[in-house]
Amino acid sequence: MKKFNAEKEVKNIVKFIRGYYKMNNLGGAILGISGGKDSGVVAGLLVKALGKENVIGVTLPCHSKEEDKIDAKLVSDYYGIDLVNFDITSTFDAFKDELKNLGTFTNEEVKNSDINLKPRLRMSTLYYLAALYSMVRGKTYIVPGTSNKCELYVGYFTKGGDSVYDISLLADYTVEEVIKLGEYLNVPDKVLYKAPNDGLSNLTDEDKLGVKYNDIATYLENKDLLDKEIREKIEKLHKNNLHKFNIPTYKRKEE
Amino acid sequence: MKKFNAEKEVKNIVKFIRGYYKMNNLGGAILGISGGKDSGVVAGLLVKALGKENVIGVTLPCHSKEEDKIDAKLVSDYYGIDLVNFDITSTFDAFKDELKNLGTFTNEEVKNSDINLKPRLRMSTLYYLAALYSMVRGKTYIVPGTSNKCELYVGYFTKGGDSVYDISLLADYTVEEVIKLGEYLNVPDKVLYKAPNDGLSNLTDEDKLGVKYNDIATYLENKDLLDKEIREKIEKLHKNNLHKFNIPTYKRKEE
Repeated sequence: MKKFNAEKEVKNIVKFIRGYYKMNNLGGAILGISGGKDSGVVAGLLVKALGKENVIGVTLPCHSKEEDKIDAKLVSDYYGIDLVNFDITSTFDAFKDELKNLGTFTNEEVKNSDINLKPRLRMSTLYYLAALYSMVRGKTYIVPGTSNKCELYVGYFTKGGDSVYDISLLADYTVEEVIKLGEYLNVPDKVLYKAPNDGLSNLTDEDKLGVKYNDIATYLENKDLLDKEIREKIEKLHKNNLHKFNIPTYKRKEE
Repeated sequence: MKKFNAEKEVKNIVKFIRGYYKMNNLGGAILGISGGKDSGVVAGLLVKALGKENVIGVTLPCHSKEEDKIDAKLVSDYYGIDLVNFDITSTFDAFKDELKNLGTFTNEEVKNSDINLKPRLRMSTLYYLAALYSMVRGKTYIVPGTSNKCELYVGYFTKGGDSVYDISLLADYTVEEVIKLGEYLNVPDKVLYKAPNDGLSNLTDEDKLGVKYNDIATYLENKDLLDKEIREKIEKLHKNNLHKFNIPTYKRKEE
């Protein structure tokens, strides 16, 4: 890992947030808090930039483990922000009930669809609450994103789900660097050093990706340090997910 | 309106679709059909490019008028494609029930949130079905977008809703030009010449925007032809919606 000055980075990000809020006359942030490191660090950054009274954390369980909610509370308690719980389980279940009208599908057939429906419902909920609290509190709330550089590079996110947000703060930091930011911001240890997972399965993100975030970070800094096999795995993930970034758009031919 | 050769444009768009599908080994399209002109034209283009057996239309009513479903059926019948009905009303209602746990809100407070929840649930459903039919039918289905140039310019779409898609076909055509494409493709008259509306309120899009699509088209071709007042209204809409396109992303400063 390259030299990294967390204090300086935090100072610059805070300046960036304040500048954007001022320019656009914004008031607050609605932040989905998963109980993982990325949202913990973003919570710390937002509180530093906007004040704790302008940040609302949201837990969005969906047939989820209770533990993630407990870890989210560690974050909100530490930073002194409001924490709203919006359980999307009944919404998810209503959707699945409606699906029955289209036929009977095997677990294997709906597996991918189910996995990606959850972050899409979470995104829908965060934006719902942002517009609602904007009305109720008379100032504009926006939805910050929490994706880091490693996740973005390999496309580890759901199009229309956690890829939809109004401001992006960690996109230029590898997982290791996010941890350094978190240490500086005193994100609770249990949250900061937890193996990242989606809260939906028992697998960690790294299990599912088949590569380690540290290897992705190494790849981004100097790919020649990696074994050919790992390098190719990362390149394949990146290539296969490019369609999430570049939406093909027809432009007419000039005469 | 400038000279417009619908036959040539259709030919080029069809080529573009086929090229993208071939390059990415894709199989089909899951298209939300609202009963309006844009999705009608996109249906016609997809059927021409991929064959009717590879296009599935979806109606997504949500406390909606029955009439939109009837108009969607005009489109699917004309092009001979399957039409799936997925009513998102119960999903929407389950969400609203869950919201009660956060407090009691006035109609005014939830109005904006409700309006935008619907296209987000529609997007979530289209992607759910695309992944599902990909599994069931053993070929990859993607979700085409239907936004036209005028809507895009003034940001008349929901972030995380109808702005999320895998391929964009009408983004370079004004509303007038989309109608020309539709005439060439024989989109049913009732659909093609209907005043655009979101199927959610009794207002047309133009009522809600406060400007006419034809004026936006004129603006895009030669803004000097418009009255100052209309020009400024369009510019204001465009400016206020820029945040939907340009997501501010923090990049670290170089040493």
